[in-house]
Amino acid sequence: MTERLRLKKNADRRLKAGHLWLYSNEIDTDATPLKDFEPGGQAVIEAANGKPMGVAYVNPHSLICARIVSRDVDVRLDRSLLVHRFKQALSLRARLFAKPFYRLVHGEGDLLPGLIIDRFDDVLVVQLNTVGMDRLRDEIVAALEKVLAPRAIVFKNDSSGRRQEQLGEEVEVAYGELPDQVLLEENGVRFVAPVLDGQKTGWFFDHRPNRAWLNGLVAGKRVLDVFSYVGSWGIQAAAHGASDVLCVDSSAQALEHVAENAALNGLAEQVAIGEGDAFEALAALKAEGEQFDVIVLDPPAFIKRRKDIPNGERAYSRLNREAIRLLGRDGLLLSASCSMHLAPDRLMECVRGAVRHQDRHGQVIYQGSQGPDHPVHPAIPETAYLKALGVRVFRN
Amino acid sequence: MTERLRLKKNADRRLKAGHLWLYSNEIDTDATPLKDFEPGGQAVIEAANGKPMGVAYVNPHSLICARIVSRDVDVRLDRSLLVHRFKQALSLRARLFAKPFYRLVHGEGDLLPGLIIDRFDDVLVVQLNTVGMDRLRDEIVAALEKVLAPRAIVFKNDSSGRRQEQLGEEVEVAYGELPDQVLLEENGVRFVAPVLDGQKTGWFFDHRPNRAWLNGLVAGKRVLDVFSYVGSWGIQAAAHGASDVLCVDSSAQALEHVAENAALNGLAEQVAIGEGDAFEALAALKAEGEQFDVIVLDPPAFIKRRKDIPNGERAYSRLNREAIRLLGRDGLLLSASCSMHLAPDRLMECVRGAVRHQDRHGQVIYQGSQGPDHPVHPAIPETAYLKALGVRVFRN
Repeated sequence: MTERLRLKKNADRRLKAGHLWLYSNEIDTDATPLKDFEPGGQAVIEAANGKPMGVAYVNPHSLICARIVSRDVDVRLDRSLLVHRFKQALSLRARLFAKPFYRLVHGEGDLLPGLIIDRFDDVLVVQLNTVGMDRLRDEIVAALEKVLAPRAIVFKNDSSGRRQEQLGEEVEVAYGELPDQVLLEENGVRFVAPVLDGQKTGWFFDHRPNRAWLNGLVAGKRVLDVFSYVGSWGIQAAAHGASDVLCVDSSAQALEHVAENAALNGLAEQVAIGEGDAFEALAALKAEGEQFDVIVLDPPAFIKRRKDIPNGERAYSRLNREAIRLLGRDGLLLSASCSMHLAPDRLMECVRGAVRHQDRHGQVIYQGSQGPDHPVHPAIPETAYLKALGVRVFRN
Repeated sequence: MTERLRLKKNADRRLKAGHLWLYSNEIDTDATPLKDFEPGGQAVIEAANGKPMGVAYVNPHSLICARIVSRDVDVRLDRSLLVHRFKQALSLRARLFAKPFYRLVHGEGDLLPGLIIDRFDDVLVVQLNTVGMDRLRDEIVAALEKVLAPRAIVFKNDSSGRRQEQLGEEVEVAYGELPDQVLLEENGVRFVAPVLDGQKTGWFFDHRPNRAWLNGLVAGKRVLDVFSYVGSWGIQAAAHGASDVLCVDSSAQALEHVAENAALNGLAEQVAIGEGDAFEALAALKAEGEQFDVIVLDPPAFIKRRKDIPNGERAYSRLNREAIRLLGRDGLLLSASCSMHLAPDRLMECVRGAVRHQDRHGQVIYQGSQGPDHPVHPAIPETAYLKALGVRVFRN
């Protein structure tokens, strides 16, 4: 017998609009008690009047208690549907990119809630961020094997989303054999992706178009890359002609990868590293009288939850203010935020305040967002999270 | 003696934040009556406590009664400051573009309120949109002569902004001699710019990066360009490998330029034209069973004033809905809006509704804005007006 989950009256509006999430307070728990559901089981969602609306997987213990996997009530999320969705996702990327380095599956944006897959040629790094997806792990491996015949599949299951779903951490090679080095290419520059010991899947493909934009403006320039991680921005800038680049990060391990990646591209001479807290490093550089033509600010999310918004906005403002002090007379600031809770116009406001505070003028000449392999679901504002502003900053 | 314009108490907040506009209801007209000012005259703006805040030109008859031209109260907007600002503007464009085809001055975004200048190599097309700028016409011509030594300067003074400032229409060659054809190149494709008889300055450089993005995805595709004007999107698509392109516009004159521009690039065979109202043309194409792989919607501003927002949003929604009906199984929609009053998330909402209405799925894979030669002033939201969403639309 098919399991059913019934919505309260008028709780179907978001679903009708195309959203994929149901919240636990929207369920008619008298008719269909959530506690009867096993975590990760699938059910037909029905409106208060009994009309079936789609199929979802369920987690009775999560605030988002169900996520739609299909509008067709006759299908289930199984190997067959996974293969179909993977092929849909792959056909988009094949059209977008000449080389096989990209986010292959971007969760809700690819109609696969809770599933992230990054592709490094024949190595696939998977994040299972919900119980519903975690339960399908064998099917996911089998479907990927069928669609892409990869050399290795890695589960990098250490996201904060998993903790909210009461899932444990686990990092393992789930299929095949992982080569000693996993390489990738972005905007024509090569990198080693630290898939096991790095952040998230090892690489952040989302800034690809924003880096491409900046790469066109760095020839002969002195570049500071703050929160550099493994050097994604800084080394690409060096490869596109920056005269010298300083990568600052608080992680010694990340900076080791910066050095490795610089050497990989024959750019060891152009790329320097500095270990330390970003704010302290900016202050120290100012004290030493350093100046830069181009500064990249790509911090981790300062705003993780809605209640962090005021503190987070202050942190973005302070960061931009401190950075602008290090810019020369006619400088370029690339100011990014990956906080979904920071609205685009609020990042603009942080930049505005920082420019004014330093009595400079600002021209926003670029408003970037996440790359096309991170599709936004138009009904799910939560899937649009990345901002990058390119700002010319000058004295009058 | 220096003229002074005094603000009411607490009316200086926006200026302190970096904005350049003063509204007539913010002036302390007891202390400094607006009616004493000649339209276009310059004055030092002072806060309620008498502190000088900058220099502005004044129009006592306009809702925006003054626009800041400098924070330095010792300077005036004259030939010397114009030369300085033009050089600042030029140095940005020279860094951005290999060829001399761009918006050289974008009003407030280049700290020159009310002044628009588009550059077609050695032909400059100028719009003087305020009395303050109109009064400086001779200085502007002289400053441009000094900085760029152009072959011709055209005044294309027929904007709606001029009517609000009670200025008349005038289109004239203000300096030098206009060649028979004014040519431009954008994204590697050549066009004739109809500077005298076209819309605005003859060309819309603002969509350059959005067209560049689309150009990468059209090879072998059938493309529909709605509101084509002189073929900016459609002909670039054909030049980048689109198999066939249909340009639809309501202006026979614009379509003549489409044919001319197609021929100029040796693309006459690939580019067809269709004259008519956009909504009627979309309906007719549907009735004829036509389908397209890629559809571009780049309509004129449906929302000119704040009170037009509800009607305008309905028009954008309807347009996107009608277009999506013409897309094949896995199509690409480029949906743009140049209405400053349509917020980016509202265009996303129009697209979302249209996709759902046609029972399709949408993936927003591109969020574009105006090109870098149209800089946004971070304190003036009105300077950020252009949106372009790239949406993959597919059936499940």
